[in-house]
Amino acid sequence: MAFYLLQRDRDGALKLAKALTDAIDNIGECENCRMLSEEPLCRLCASADRDASVLCVVESPADVMAIEESGVFRGHYFVLHGRLSPLDGIGPEELHLQVFAKRVAAGGISEIILATSSTVEGEATSGYLASLAQAQGVRVSRIAHGVPIGGELEYVDRSTLSRAIAGRNSVSPD
Amino acid sequence: MAFYLLQRDRDGALKLAKALTDAIDNIGECENCRMLSEEPLCRLCASADRDASVLCVVESPADVMAIEESGVFRGHYFVLHGRLSPLDGIGPEELHLQVFAKRVAAGGISEIILATSSTVEGEATSGYLASLAQAQGVRVSRIAHGVPIGGELEYVDRSTLSRAIAGRNSVSPD
Repeated sequence: MAFYLLQRDRDGALKLAKALTDAIDNIGECENCRMLSEEPLCRLCASADRDASVLCVVESPADVMAIEESGVFRGHYFVLHGRLSPLDGIGPEELHLQVFAKRVAAGGISEIILATSSTVEGEATSGYLASLAQAQGVRVSRIAHGVPIGGELEYVDRSTLSRAIAGRNSVSPD
Repeated sequence: MAFYLLQRDRDGALKLAKALTDAIDNIGECENCRMLSEEPLCRLCASADRDASVLCVVESPADVMAIEESGVFRGHYFVLHGRLSPLDGIGPEELHLQVFAKRVAAGGISEIILATSSTVEGEATSGYLASLAQAQGVRVSRIAHGVPIGGELEYVDRSTLSRAIAGRNSVSPD
């Protein structure tokens, strides 16, 4: 990309540089959910259409975009910007979990959906947040893990298959 | 492979031909679970170590191998050799579902785990089998669907993400 810009599109390079500088100058974090935002309160937190009583905790702004695209969730988010990883020196302070704790303590939340990734660190983070929220008496749930939609069993990895069988759901009669 | 065998390994080709003929001659279906087997009763159905009261229904012998590798399931299987697909002319008769119905009617089964794939046809098959088994008063469950283990949310497809959020599980306090 660098070669292309320098050889063929020097004007474009200047525009790109300006766009990047503007982004760095103007885009900060929403003070409510830590999503990237140009305003103090992001578009999702400011919207009156969304249910502020359900909070979905994710690891990154990209996860917010992914869930928004799926269209199934109409509540608010909380972006961790990472996950607990003591080996890399990332503890509760580095993830600013006091902001999360404050938000939960402020009340008005009926359910917290933990949507951290299903890696080891994601699970640990999820466990930590669950105990933190449950100490405040808030109901906590975890997104479902198992076989992806459209997936053939044969091509699913072992640990996902174990989890899908262990976490099977009763089928209620019609 | 054909060129390699004809040019370099004509003995190997003969061995392969014999192995294939032997397999075709000797490998049939287990009369209990329809798994591929050399004996009338397959290794899994014949084993005394396995719990005959839990039945896991899968689409193909490869699925049995996949679940066996995961090591989480110790019950018996039932192999459908396909899935209901009316558009392709595959109905209950083509899948020999009367064998399944007979097996359920014979009693001794406390739970049926439906592990058909999460495609449209797999879900339809699962629904059909569920009503069939529930008519006999047997408890039915479905393997879990959602985000695969180790998966980052960002790379999960929309429909899986919707299902993972809609099918979220309560986290019980410690």
